[in-house]
Amino acid sequence: MAASPTRDLSSARDTIYQAISAIRLIDPHTHINPHSAGSTTLADILGYHYYTELVHSAGMPRLEIEEPGIEPRELVRRMVHGLGNITNTANYHWLIQICREFFDFTDDAITLDNWEDLFDRSEQKMASPDWAQTVLDQSNVEAVFLTNDFDDDLSGFDTNTYIPCLRTDDLVFHLAKQEVQDRLEACSGIANDGSLKSLHAALRQRFVHFVSKGARACAISIPPSFQPTPVSDGRAQNAYDSVLTNGTDANPEDIAALSRKVFWTLAELCDEFGLPFDLMIGVNRGVYPGGVYQGQDLYDSRVSLIQYRELFNAFPRVKFPISVLASVTNQELVSYSWIFPNVLTNGHWWYSNTPSFIHRDAAARLEAVPRNKQIGYYSDAYKLEFVLPKFDMYRRILARVLADEFVGENGWSEEKAIELGRQVLRGNVDEIFRAPQAIDESAPLDEFGNPAVIAGRTSDGTNEDLDPVPSDAEIDSSGVSDVTLSETTADDHATDLDHEIDAVPLNVGDLLGDKNPSGPDAPGSQIHPIAGDGEFTPDGKSMRLRPDPMTGELHFPVDEDEKKSKGEG
Amino acid sequence: MAASPTRDLSSARDTIYQAISAIRLIDPHTHINPHSAGSTTLADILGYHYYTELVHSAGMPRLEIEEPGIEPRELVRRMVHGLGNITNTANYHWLIQICREFFDFTDDAITLDNWEDLFDRSEQKMASPDWAQTVLDQSNVEAVFLTNDFDDDLSGFDTNTYIPCLRTDDLVFHLAKQEVQDRLEACSGIANDGSLKSLHAALRQRFVHFVSKGARACAISIPPSFQPTPVSDGRAQNAYDSVLTNGTDANPEDIAALSRKVFWTLAELCDEFGLPFDLMIGVNRGVYPGGVYQGQDLYDSRVSLIQYRELFNAFPRVKFPISVLASVTNQELVSYSWIFPNVLTNGHWWYSNTPSFIHRDAAARLEAVPRNKQIGYYSDAYKLEFVLPKFDMYRRILARVLADEFVGENGWSEEKAIELGRQVLRGNVDEIFRAPQAIDESAPLDEFGNPAVIAGRTSDGTNEDLDPVPSDAEIDSSGVSDVTLSETTADDHATDLDHEIDAVPLNVGDLLGDKNPSGPDAPGSQIHPIAGDGEFTPDGKSMRLRPDPMTGELHFPVDEDEKKSKGEG
Amino acid sequence: MAASPTRDLSSARDTIYQAISAIRLIDPHTHINPHSAGSTTLADILGYHYYTELVHSAGMPRLEIEEPGIEPRELVRRMVHGLGNITNTANYHWLIQICREFFDFTDDAITLDNWEDLFDRSEQKMASPDWAQTVLDQSNVEAVFLTNDFDDDLSGFDTNTYIPCLRTDDLVFHLAKQEVQDRLEACSGIANDGSLKSLHAALRQRFVHFVSKGARACAISIPPSFQPTPVSDGRAQNAYDSVLTNGTDANPEDIAALSRKVFWTLAELCDEFGLPFDLMIGVNRGVYPGGVYQGQDLYDSRVSLIQYRELFNAFPRVKFPISVLASVTNQELVSYSWIFPNVLTNGHWWYSNTPSFIHRDAAARLEAVPRNKQIGYYSDAYKLEFVLPKFDMYRRILARVLADEFVGENGWSEEKAIELGRQVLRGNVDEIFRAPQAIDESAPLDEFGNPAVIAGRTSDGTNEDLDPVPSDAEIDSSGVSDVTLSETTADDHATDLDHEIDAVPLNVGDLLGDKNPSGPDAPGSQIHPIAGDGEFTPDGKSMRLRPDPMTGELHFPVDEDEKKSKGEG
Repeated sequence: MAASPTRDLSSARDTIYQAISAIRLIDPHTHINPHSAGSTTLADILGYHYYTELVHSAGMPRLEIEEPGIEPRELVRRMVHGLGNITNTANYHWLIQICREFFDFTDDAITLDNWEDLFDRSEQKMASPDWAQTVLDQSNVEAVFLTNDFDDDLSGFDTNTYIPCLRTDDLVFHLAKQEVQDRLEACSGIANDGSLKSLHAALRQRFVHFVSKGARACAISIPPSFQPTPVSDGRAQNAYDSVLTNGTDANPEDIAALSRKVFWTLAELCDEFGLPFDLMIGVNRGVYPGGVYQGQDLYDSRVSLIQYRELFNAFPRVKFPISVLASVTNQELVSYSWIFPNVLTNGHWWYSNTPSFIHRDAAARLEAVPRNKQIGYYSDAYKLEFVLPKFDMYRRILARVLADEFVGENGWSEEKAIELGRQVLRGNVDEIFRAPQAIDESAPLDEFGNPAVIAGRTSDGTNEDLDPVPSDAEIDSSGVSDVTLSETTADDHATDLDHEIDAVPLNVGDLLGDKNPSGPDAPGSQIHPIAGDGEFTPDGKSMRLRPDPMTGELHFPVDEDEKKSKGEG
Repeated sequence: MAASPTRDLSSARDTIYQAISAIRLIDPHTHINPHSAGSTTLADILGYHYYTELVHSAGMPRLEIEEPGIEPRELVRRMVHGLGNITNTANYHWLIQICREFFDFTDDAITLDNWEDLFDRSEQKMASPDWAQTVLDQSNVEAVFLTNDFDDDLSGFDTNTYIPCLRTDDLVFHLAKQEVQDRLEACSGIANDGSLKSLHAALRQRFVHFVSKGARACAISIPPSFQPTPVSDGRAQNAYDSVLTNGTDANPEDIAALSRKVFWTLAELCDEFGLPFDLMIGVNRGVYPGGVYQGQDLYDSRVSLIQYRELFNAFPRVKFPISVLASVTNQELVSYSWIFPNVLTNGHWWYSNTPSFIHRDAAARLEAVPRNKQIGYYSDAYKLEFVLPKFDMYRRILARVLADEFVGENGWSEEKAIELGRQVLRGNVDEIFRAPQAIDESAPLDEFGNPAVIAGRTSDGTNEDLDPVPSDAEIDSSGVSDVTLSETTADDHATDLDHEIDAVPLNVGDLLGDKNPSGPDAPGSQIHPIAGDGEFTPDGKSMRLRPDPMTGELHFPVDEDEKKSKGEG
Repeated sequence: MAASPTRDLSSARDTIYQAISAIRLIDPHTHINPHSAGSTTLADILGYHYYTELVHSAGMPRLEIEEPGIEPRELVRRMVHGLGNITNTANYHWLIQICREFFDFTDDAITLDNWEDLFDRSEQKMASPDWAQTVLDQSNVEAVFLTNDFDDDLSGFDTNTYIPCLRTDDLVFHLAKQEVQDRLEACSGIANDGSLKSLHAALRQRFVHFVSKGARACAISIPPSFQPTPVSDGRAQNAYDSVLTNGTDANPEDIAALSRKVFWTLAELCDEFGLPFDLMIGVNRGVYPGGVYQGQDLYDSRVSLIQYRELFNAFPRVKFPISVLASVTNQELVSYSWIFPNVLTNGHWWYSNTPSFIHRDAAARLEAVPRNKQIGYYSDAYKLEFVLPKFDMYRRILARVLADEFVGENGWSEEKAIELGRQVLRGNVDEIFRAPQAIDESAPLDEFGNPAVIAGRTSDGTNEDLDPVPSDAEIDSSGVSDVTLSETTADDHATDLDHEIDAVPLNVGDLLGDKNPSGPDAPGSQIHPIAGDGEFTPDGKSMRLRPDPMTGELHFPVDEDEKKSKGEG
């Protein structure tokens, strides 16, 4: 190949960095409170768990930081005393950048000598009534995704700027708590009669609510041990009975079964409503209970995406943007995204959100995952001021990888590299989180008073095309499309074929060959229905669902030897 | 040290890259069909699973790609529509390089505008009767290793250019299938009387066949869960009975026990016949059954080489070139190769065969594993055209590591660096995969009609030296060699001592000290025989083989605390 | 941010490297024998297991290397024959640097032609009576930590230069051996009457001995499978009875329970005596029993720091400098150090002690872990000559990271970068391994004749402040300090607040809010006592200790769903 690997790439890095910094962003995952999006004092900035946990870890007692009733100025004063121990961290770097970008700060450290001036000056700026919009504009940010509790009424803010996202951790992992049951009943308006049916209806009502308010994604964070599997209705009803009777004291197996049932149901609803399901995989909550608020969670890096095998196979139409907590899982994420059409790479999360991990993880993705399946970054910010420095950290690394590997090693032009940067920074966010089909107001209502038809599908999810807006360029490929309608994200990543595909046989069975499914429709999947007799036949071979000896739940095991191994290797 | 880490290394990279590109290659692992080694149309190139699976993952329905009876030109046309989504991938980079190197292509992308010219021009070139040899020559490739089914008759091609390799996945993992049993009986000519003895004879006949046809390696790919262990003949016979009776419906424990028995037997035969045993560790087959052909396999990165502990200890004379699927296992591979004489690093496999993983994995090997134990790369190609771009990707990274780390950081001369590159690219392939001892035609036959003595050993593997051609430089170290004959690859990596080692005591027991083995000969190991009473005494201490409570099979557990921990750390 | 990522960083690397090379070192972990700290011939250098195991792995029979009675010159001669295969390794690089720095060697390889001159010249130099001090001075090393057996009498050497460290592997993992029991009884002078109480007293006597002789740390290396948990006295006494009766033939569960009890007791004693507890996590001993001395150990990289969750929570005042064997565990170490005040990063151990792993692991730590919690490096050397090349390898990489990432990417001045380098190389060693409180000679004796009060605490570990020397700058924060005395290393990393914190309520329960502990004191923890009824209430919620169904031991499981997941993600 022509490119010399040794040319000076300084100029390419700069050019690319400047170009991608000019892209107006949509931040696809934050914890911003839309009613209080910007900070009001430096205490909002320094109170971010990254600073409190690091300063605590470096030696400051928790109670100095979390003293009840402490005033903002006093908190900042105390925090400043601890900052000297964390000046090396990427998080401190964000802090200085915020102060320089937004508060006219010119020093390179916050010290006992300068903090009070900074506090006063920043407080004055933040007091501006349009501070949030100022920050958005100065950060070149068009919109941010939120993280909304399932019972959020989603009112009182502009959902074009603050885009709702249904966060489901409580529903999946805490439904045994009376408080969560009560909240669900109250917000959905659907009485809990103890049946799975009413539970399903309440969950579905939440989707109707969120989608009608402009939600673009469903999301959840998941511990390393979780393995999604379908749970039969009988088993699930038993588990639900147990949980409703005993609450958090219920048999752990029952609580776990209910978790899996709710999770699976959410995936079905994402399928029905056309919502991507953001999975954030790997966190153990409360590992250090003596830590500061939000600074108690850690993880076991021994997690594998093989645990999600059944999910990815069962829901080919649901897009799963996936974040992994530990960089050691990044190669699995790359490989699964490389193979599964519905698995997408999503940002650099939490403990992997520091430069060296971003660098290696981003480089691995950029060279191996289809470019239309990579969501480069999200800020995860709690306050708007953090969007800029976090994205800027990513942009600098992205520019480095694009310049070094694509311009330098691959011989790309800077323009081509910038285009790739644009796609992972913004273009894919637009494509992947497109607004789902609007709720059809004239649709018939189900027995719970919710619309029975969504996104061209019936509420049992068995119907029709996913793509709400076929592009003009799309061809008439009716023959093929009849049989490929359930082929995952095919329509979403429309291949703009400019021709007619010759008619192909319409006999689905012939076409699918040994992949011909048998049996009645299964929830969430047309291509791999689970037959009534418990057989799953993706290969035309019997791949038996096996009941768990402890719980009676059905699953199919990782099946390593079934296929004649003529693949790679 | 003298070297400045900051000199400009551009020139060193270029010089080293040029030098190692001039080395004529032997590709030690491919899936080339020797009867059809080159491609005939671009569809052979674009039909490679890397392209079909990536284009499918990026959104093209499987049935557009795998429509039955589709013409090559039509397949290419469809694929071209999907290529835009994968231009960032290393695999796409290979494609463009192939077109430029072999088909006079001058653009940097295959588009709707240029693909048809390219199709026609390439078809014309591939029609040349000596196309395969043209590709080999232009790629500077002398020979390629094949991947042959166990029942391949290995005739009709030049085994000096297309070197046979016995692929054993079917035997180990699919012997429960009637079809595999039938194939083994048919090709070996040995009737299956249901006894382990006849099974062993059939397997051994295959080794005779392959070695007599010039095979240089045995190979297998292995799922993450597999753990090789010896299985007693009694247990194995029961398992074999069960499998012969019930086929793939046999008890999974029986199928697994038979797998382990066959695997262990293959290792014994590798020992007897002097064949390296390529292990490709980590793939789960059929994780995504809805994927395209050969695009359905993924993995669980939670695998450890500790699972191979017993194997590596039991077969010190067998060389195990090892490929790992996930980069997170690379450090284990480095460490095990650093310690075990019979463990070698082998290439960069599949999902780890992209630049950033190669770069980090190769750098870790080059700085830590003895230089004579590293097989730098293999192409894994299905068609000859891919050998060039894949090796070139590796060469560029190798040049980068050699220039940056060895010339730059260590202060090496470019000549020294090139010499290291030559060794891992070619020299070690010659050494490690040397032709085994020819079959002795005059040897007595066993009861199945096969030669009873191979490579200086009896067929029970208990005899004599491994090294078929002692080098002239080797000294008379009879006293030592008598006791070290089983010391792993000692003879293979001959240390050219130019002197006489003083006579040492011939009493093996005295010399071995507390490593003195006891008990009768064990299969595949003279140094660590397994005693009749089930004790294994590598340290003179009792290290009990323990029966598995489920299966009755013997194994010895990882024994963490036995040894007084005075080592490193 | 202002810094251009593309400036030439050569000069910064050089400047930083020179500056940090001028820092006088204390090496916080070695295996130096203080009675024979330097080498006497090249055989001491080439006999280091790194060379013997690599040369063996490359093909030299073990018995050539470990022939009984072999003379030093002959061993070196043989080893030189094998060195050609390992010239690429980092370890070989150390060797050449030693020869050049200490023995006037000017070649860049040791060959058949030059080794004998080198042998003679080096032997002459090492014969100097003050050779050890010469090496220390030339290496710019002030002191080295040792690795002392628990029964070392620690006499006959200068403990300011050779700092004792209590190594506890034998006590934790080998107490079932009669020999270890005998050694403990003999050295402690406390008769083993079979009671846990006498065992505790013997262990405690060893701490008195070590601390009175200037020990600064306790240390242990741990296999991947070990998970420290508290063991009740009843269970532990049963286990001890079993082990005293049956020795190494005791039930493995009993041996394991005793291991955990001893380990937990050591942590309690570290707490009482103010000693850091170095944990070196991840080694499996004796994986390759046929290997050379000290070249038999490997590992299973599937280990997680989540296994240490209970330990880190239970001993907030004990500093745990942690080394991990595999680089895949480094991110966990970074994250746990980022969150837990008592978890510190410690060096680059063994199989991770090669340049590419150090580079990636060090970079990840420097950008994420508070700067006062990172111990950059230790040599792990057995002979003084190795301290220099090993530290120099680290310094070069450290300079690279500081120049590239901190000066280049973050825009730091070289001075700031050097200061960070100084802290991780030396400053933190001084701070973290400060001499513990001297034994109070006038303290009352317990029934075993040992001082009953140490470091301001009673021997049951329930008392008073850890910090022996409150800094002048410390404020009167009595109200807070009353409730924060058990807040981990708070006092150690004193935040020099220059003011008075306003009085806060003294009611501990009010302050702690839902973290209010209940129940009697628990061993080793004031903040998270384990209540008598088996409940542990870090969050004011019930977090039940559950008995292991096999062993009856108490533990609390990783609890993933307890906390409402409103954290990151």
